[in-house]
Amino acid sequence: MLSSAGSASLPEGFRACGRSCGIKPSGRSDLALFVSDTAAAAAGVFTTNRVLGAPVMVSQQRVPAGDIRAVVINSGNANACTGDRGIQDAQAMTASVARQIGCRAEQVLVCSTGIIGVPLPVDRITAAIGPAVKDAGTDDADLMAAAEAMMTTDTFPKLVSRDVAAENGTVRVAGAAKGAAMIAPNMATMLAVVMTDAVLTPPQCDELLREATARTFNCIRVDGHMSTSDTVLLLAGGSSGVAAADMPEFREAVTDVCEKLATDIVRDAEGASHFIVVDVCGFDSREAAVQVARAVADSALVKTAVTGNDPNWGRITSAAGYAGIEFDADCLTLEINGVTVYRNGVPVPYDEGALSAVMAEQDVHLRLELTGGPRSGSSQARLWTSDLTQEYVRLNSEYTT
Amino acid sequence: MLSSAGSASLPEGFRACGRSCGIKPSGRSDLALFVSDTAAAAAGVFTTNRVLGAPVMVSQQRVPAGDIRAVVINSGNANACTGDRGIQDAQAMTASVARQIGCRAEQVLVCSTGIIGVPLPVDRITAAIGPAVKDAGTDDADLMAAAEAMMTTDTFPKLVSRDVAAENGTVRVAGAAKGAAMIAPNMATMLAVVMTDAVLTPPQCDELLREATARTFNCIRVDGHMSTSDTVLLLAGGSSGVAAADMPEFREAVTDVCEKLATDIVRDAEGASHFIVVDVCGFDSREAAVQVARAVADSALVKTAVTGNDPNWGRITSAAGYAGIEFDADCLTLEINGVTVYRNGVPVPYDEGALSAVMAEQDVHLRLELTGGPRSGSSQARLWTSDLTQEYVRLNSEYTT
Repeated sequence: MLSSAGSASLPEGFRACGRSCGIKPSGRSDLALFVSDTAAAAAGVFTTNRVLGAPVMVSQQRVPAGDIRAVVINSGNANACTGDRGIQDAQAMTASVARQIGCRAEQVLVCSTGIIGVPLPVDRITAAIGPAVKDAGTDDADLMAAAEAMMTTDTFPKLVSRDVAAENGTVRVAGAAKGAAMIAPNMATMLAVVMTDAVLTPPQCDELLREATARTFNCIRVDGHMSTSDTVLLLAGGSSGVAAADMPEFREAVTDVCEKLATDIVRDAEGASHFIVVDVCGFDSREAAVQVARAVADSALVKTAVTGNDPNWGRITSAAGYAGIEFDADCLTLEINGVTVYRNGVPVPYDEGALSAVMAEQDVHLRLELTGGPRSGSSQARLWTSDLTQEYVRLNSEYTT
Repeated sequence: MLSSAGSASLPEGFRACGRSCGIKPSGRSDLALFVSDTAAAAAGVFTTNRVLGAPVMVSQQRVPAGDIRAVVINSGNANACTGDRGIQDAQAMTASVARQIGCRAEQVLVCSTGIIGVPLPVDRITAAIGPAVKDAGTDDADLMAAAEAMMTTDTFPKLVSRDVAAENGTVRVAGAAKGAAMIAPNMATMLAVVMTDAVLTPPQCDELLREATARTFNCIRVDGHMSTSDTVLLLAGGSSGVAAADMPEFREAVTDVCEKLATDIVRDAEGASHFIVVDVCGFDSREAAVQVARAVADSALVKTAVTGNDPNWGRITSAAGYAGIEFDADCLTLEINGVTVYRNGVPVPYDEGALSAVMAEQDVHLRLELTGGPRSGSSQARLWTSDLTQEYVRLNSEYTT
């Protein structure tokens, strides 16, 4: 189920670095830095949790903006639930980067991920920022190092880049992310930084990021538990000289990059043994389709059925049935990996052994279609999720303190 | 964590029976019958799933009513997702009971629980109904036999009775239930029948049942997966001659009976190792408190923390944070089994080993309080749930067909 890390390249005008500053007891790298040589248009999408990490409070006040110069990220400590000191520490991280690259602290964004409720060893971080700024480079290895330094319980780094040919040049979109997984009382977080050398205004950046996030990062369900620190950032440095906001290929590339990072997060979900695509179509609004897909994707019984390679139409259709959308149950049809197992409200015969064997070998694809009646229409939604295994329970119930 | 079955007595004017009619391959009892010697006022609360079992479609058209004479229940087959034939079979079960006791089919309610998508062996059921009606008795053992015949994956029968002294006599409330647990592609269901010899009108029955269900059966969360057949019925036969609708002690007894059955269902949840009480207080509406409590009770990370006896304040407060209620995170306080672990937005020191030991020994009690700010007030909610264990995953992911 693992996805290969692959290689990815930074867009023109960006530098990156990953190194160890001594937060993780393992000595693994825990400080990532992304620098834009130009003042970048930037936008952010943040967790809507009421319990917020300090870096989220600091960063969300600074975007959208037209002059962002860097993103600094530490792993190993989320700087959350630490009161006023947390805010001061997050601000200190940005001030330290600003001093080193010659800009204002407000031009630097910050993210943290790791344990919560423990004050950040901020001196170790600020001491490492000088060398990190000097180290930051434009090679693929630099982007890889930054992606690695963001990892907590991730088993592989998540990074991707896409090139888009425009009339007057080439635009690149690249991103790095870390996965959503939580180990008590540590709490890991979904973080993603997407960079492009396209020319965008801050409002264009904001709109593009919200559109891409709605169809990618907001469509993954690991265990439904939203972290206090989830953050997705988009920086557009403009070095390509290409004004790309209205180019469909460019917008698609941004969504592509976000989708690759988001699905890699699901593929790397704790203890998961199956990657599951949930498609819901034939509803009268995207919201309705999303609501049905969420009920299916979040059902512990659907997840455990997939764990057992069991094409369990009853669990899937009944999860759709309690989603809160008043559709006609006699118009519901279900395909599992292309095999129709339930049509218009009744199960249909199929080769269960063969389908189970396919589920054991491949990604699992659940497709629910509403074929008529109230709430039917032409809207659809796709979510990605993972199964629920004994290993997930073991990882999350082990007493770790 | 098991609750003892205890003994319970039928109210005046009710008879019960449990026997085997040959649906379950194990030969265990699978036909339960409750008969009211008088025409009983009756009400029902049913699953809101869009995918409905045929017995739910039949029974919900027959209540509220003033002349219900019996409830017939089979386990082993849910008679769901079987098209028109399912409706005919459910109707045939009620017609068969009606013939035996001398009433119209519309005066009989029906429930089924077990596998879905497989036609009911209705001839075996109707053949057993005659002997069942003759067998039905008033002893405690008869109620116990009926409760046992409702069981699917339950490990103990669920039944309870309460006596209430009134000025002009004694009123009894008794109930039997089966648990919510699902095994693929079988789908088990929550069913409960509550009987009383109090005198109630059908509207009083309906109002009383809705009130009690809202605070008991609708406050339990096992895995959040709502069945196609969930049903709670209340029958008031009137034999005590006591008009009890406005007696607080009687209303409390009905809620008590429902709470005992509901919490026994949670205590018997598949693979569970902890019984968890989630109290949320200090919110400006009961709805807000329920919404926060549901987010906590449904979180796989909270459940697995409890599995590991881990007083993980971060998972609990962050689950509250994403419930969708815009409270002030700096006004949130958390107690676990009476120990304050998080006060007004920050963790506080406590003896983690001692608290973990208490969690290992006792029911786990999580209490979240909002102490001020927006959305604060005097409303509260209590939910009951169970933890999430490797055994739950094993039970629900084993390939069973």
